[in-house]
Amino acid sequence: MKVYVAQQNHHIGNFDRNVGLIIDALGRAEASGADLAVFTELCVCGYPPRDFLEFDDFIRECEAAVERILPYTHHVAAIIGAPARNPDPRGKDLFNAAWVLHEGEVKAVVHKTLLPNYDVFDEYRYFEPATEWKVVPLLGHRIALTVCEDIWNLGDNPLYRICPMDELMHQSPDLMINISASPFDYDHDEDRKEVVRQNVLRYGLPMIYTNAVGSQTEIVFDGGSLAFDASGNLVRELAYFREDECLIDTDELTQPSAGPADVPASLLERDMRVRRIADPDSIIPYLTAPHNMAQVHSALILGIRDYFSKMGFAKAILGSSGGIDSAVTLALACEALGPENVRAVLMPSEFSSGHSVEDAVALSRNLANPYDIVPIRSVYDTFLETLAPIFGDLPFGLAEENLQSRSRGNLLMAIANKFGLILLNTSNKSELATGYGTLYGDMAGGLSVLGDVYKMQVYALAEHINRNGAIIPRHIITKAPSAELRPNQKDSDSLPDYALLDKVLFQYIEKRKGPREIISMGIDEALVRRVLRMVNANEYKRNQFCPIIRVSSKAFGVGRRVPIVGRYLG
Amino acid sequence: MKVYVAQQNHHIGNFDRNVGLIIDALGRAEASGADLAVFTELCVCGYPPRDFLEFDDFIRECEAAVERILPYTHHVAAIIGAPARNPDPRGKDLFNAAWVLHEGEVKAVVHKTLLPNYDVFDEYRYFEPATEWKVVPLLGHRIALTVCEDIWNLGDNPLYRICPMDELMHQSPDLMINISASPFDYDHDEDRKEVVRQNVLRYGLPMIYTNAVGSQTEIVFDGGSLAFDASGNLVRELAYFREDECLIDTDELTQPSAGPADVPASLLERDMRVRRIADPDSIIPYLTAPHNMAQVHSALILGIRDYFSKMGFAKAILGSSGGIDSAVTLALACEALGPENVRAVLMPSEFSSGHSVEDAVALSRNLANPYDIVPIRSVYDTFLETLAPIFGDLPFGLAEENLQSRSRGNLLMAIANKFGLILLNTSNKSELATGYGTLYGDMAGGLSVLGDVYKMQVYALAEHINRNGAIIPRHIITKAPSAELRPNQKDSDSLPDYALLDKVLFQYIEKRKGPREIISMGIDEALVRRVLRMVNANEYKRNQFCPIIRVSSKAFGVGRRVPIVGRYLG
Repeated sequence: MKVYVAQQNHHIGNFDRNVGLIIDALGRAEASGADLAVFTELCVCGYPPRDFLEFDDFIRECEAAVERILPYTHHVAAIIGAPARNPDPRGKDLFNAAWVLHEGEVKAVVHKTLLPNYDVFDEYRYFEPATEWKVVPLLGHRIALTVCEDIWNLGDNPLYRICPMDELMHQSPDLMINISASPFDYDHDEDRKEVVRQNVLRYGLPMIYTNAVGSQTEIVFDGGSLAFDASGNLVRELAYFREDECLIDTDELTQPSAGPADVPASLLERDMRVRRIADPDSIIPYLTAPHNMAQVHSALILGIRDYFSKMGFAKAILGSSGGIDSAVTLALACEALGPENVRAVLMPSEFSSGHSVEDAVALSRNLANPYDIVPIRSVYDTFLETLAPIFGDLPFGLAEENLQSRSRGNLLMAIANKFGLILLNTSNKSELATGYGTLYGDMAGGLSVLGDVYKMQVYALAEHINRNGAIIPRHIITKAPSAELRPNQKDSDSLPDYALLDKVLFQYIEKRKGPREIISMGIDEALVRRVLRMVNANEYKRNQFCPIIRVSSKAFGVGRRVPIVGRYLG
Repeated sequence: MKVYVAQQNHHIGNFDRNVGLIIDALGRAEASGADLAVFTELCVCGYPPRDFLEFDDFIRECEAAVERILPYTHHVAAIIGAPARNPDPRGKDLFNAAWVLHEGEVKAVVHKTLLPNYDVFDEYRYFEPATEWKVVPLLGHRIALTVCEDIWNLGDNPLYRICPMDELMHQSPDLMINISASPFDYDHDEDRKEVVRQNVLRYGLPMIYTNAVGSQTEIVFDGGSLAFDASGNLVRELAYFREDECLIDTDELTQPSAGPADVPASLLERDMRVRRIADPDSIIPYLTAPHNMAQVHSALILGIRDYFSKMGFAKAILGSSGGIDSAVTLALACEALGPENVRAVLMPSEFSSGHSVEDAVALSRNLANPYDIVPIRSVYDTFLETLAPIFGDLPFGLAEENLQSRSRGNLLMAIANKFGLILLNTSNKSELATGYGTLYGDMAGGLSVLGDVYKMQVYALAEHINRNGAIIPRHIITKAPSAELRPNQKDSDSLPDYALLDKVLFQYIEKRKGPREIISMGIDEALVRRVLRMVNANEYKRNQFCPIIRVSSKAFGVGRRVPIVGRYLG
């Protein structure tokens, strides 16, 4: 059987686009002699559709999409992802399903069993889990067809009590196919490959694994669809971070190979690489490893590009301060959108150092993107004059610092509104964690590029961007970071050294370690308690923050849900 | 047996406060001769603790809290709510549990079976459901002890396949006790009473039902704990929207009463009242019904008060425009915090009508709260001058309107930062739904008071506030609503008539009806499609909005999760 793997970039709720992509691929599959084309999880509506699934109208649109695809499956069969209604009045209304289409008819509908309900996933909110399992007979094969998470329990995943593949093995399948929408985080591709391989080794069957590609608001799907032969050898691996397709003959996957692949020792578990980092001193090297930075770079480019194209925008604006965060954001935006589509605005104040404007100008010259210089002095002074009757002779403080940041935010939003641009936010994960930013000021924006990238990683990303020559001027990378909101301000006045800060933040955010556990790693108690208090006290700020392109196993945003009025560690 | 019902206001993660409240109540229970004191769901840590539950450290704090309470249970037994660890390596790490403490020991731990995972609830994210059920023997009684949702399936709730009370009835209990954290929405108290009564009628046993009170960020718990006798008669009902306690002798609940209560015809279902509104013409009367407005008023007062006290703030600020939204917000804030703690700022522009300042001043005189008048003209003009080199001679438009709104937001935040105030947001649900507001401008704030109150309800709330005499000047209620950001602007330039708009929004938001269903109710197709498009196109704005005090069955915020880059109905 010849199988066409279609790794596509769908758009949530954009049925015309998704159906068009699927039908086009079916045409190419047929032309290439394929018997079957395999798509990805919930591809007709895009993943994750979230509460749109609560609308009967939305489900009818999904059903209509399947109907529109059916006529194109007369010659080539298709496996697509779409919700399916639960005919039983008991249980939730829907299943997350793989639909098998052939000869213009629906031949089978396979329901997902293991419903992820952690981090960014809410599948138990919408779907009923499968309680029966049937191999799908198709074109002379017996396919063990599963959806995404269904292959992530091999009896050792504490989240689940069922192993769908174990159930299917009673029915003598000869091929495994899994359709997924498995999001990116750095290193997760290795976990994923390992899980697929472990399934292959456990069941002794070849597997074709399709994964979605593209970014949906904050969640990046990285593709990398896979085909393994029955001995556990990787036969085909599709591109990462872009659409890709290939034709696989299943004979290739069942022929005797050079022998069985090495059986890896590690057991399957979520975040296994993150959990492996037991030594606190290995955290920063792990976070900034060149392989991870290359992946993060690709994910951020895709995240920016898809956010704009799917929102129907082409052009961005951002504040370029001469600091490293805005420099890296600007470089990434120029790569994603084209430098002519990214407008940098330099907004010096009386507290800006002389080099700030020079560095930002040099950066935009390197990138060849348009920039404006808009000093904020008169706006800031007018605010102070207007507020003078209220502020009286109270000393300069946080209110005045925030006023400058918000004046910049207001100027950026005004230009964005005037010219139809989206404001890119430049905050990094370390700042967001500690609340070192101004709501409606430097925290403004439609999309956060670096909000899941720790400060130490921002430096590593800058080096990665400069790998083929200096794009980001060296002085931007080497100077001491500063918000420049008061005379001679430095980040280090308010925050611990970033290498130490990021180490604590990683333990707390990614690894969910509490104060006692982090202190026991040999980090100063007062510092640990101060950092954790800062993180928890600033939930209210992050709650009003824009979507953050997710690159880690635990990003701020939809996947991290913390009470605002809580007083834990406060 | 004498049972002390303790309906308390806990604070998430604030273990000292929560344990203190519980120990104090145990002292009063003992003094009043009680045998048993019953508290509410997850009372030691507060409900909902959300992702704090993923921290082992947090669970250890919960366990320590139980340990601290134990010594106070030598004479009076206690039923408290706390997470319990799952000793089985299979399944999630935790149960949501009711702990029975007596004689200084843990006598029983009962696990919750039905885990709500819809709207604001995410319990399946954290908890493993119970799979065995045991009656608790205590003080000569056999107690069928359940946690919240466990009594919400009587065989007819499609979300669940198990009825925990059916299981417990095999073991001949003589009393039902349920500990809850059941949130408020208007009318939900009646649903809740009905559910408890139906359990009583089905099983022929008395029930003591405790409910939490207090607001946790956006979710308001309204109390109203209940005791029913075995015939289905309501014997005791605790206060709504405040802490309350009472002593109940279970003999009262088992003595023959005047006969069985009326058996209501309706079946149990979620949102049953909301679902009952089939006639579109009954929506506005329903939304603005005096009983609902009185409840909404109480919920908003509690929501404001708890947000401030639990965040450790006493004073608020808000922009007072002379319009009805800010007037109602200001009146509510003055009632919740005391007028001396609420600073109104009047910020007229060149587009403000003459009456705006007069009306706002009259309002603050009625309320006796401090106010300032801060014209925005010079700030706005300076922004325009600063932007002139970029804007050139492009005509006045949205950018200039937003600039005014953001200048106001910036002034309010500056005063808030200077004096340690929290900015109250004044946007209503109709505006938020349609995106009729400016990010970082009138959408700024730490807490939204009216974000779950439709515009037609804001009018009804104003009448309710004025029920004993004019607090809100009549002219504020009667004048045509306007944002006053350009000459002679009216809301009706951009939005449909609010009575019609709210009718469509209610069908779409609360009832999840699609365009075809709403049009079939006789509402103009173009208008329906335009309104739904506005709602979906503005997810990106609401995503950056502050917490909204939740008063309806479907509020914007944590309970409504919609993709930002989606194109459904776009």
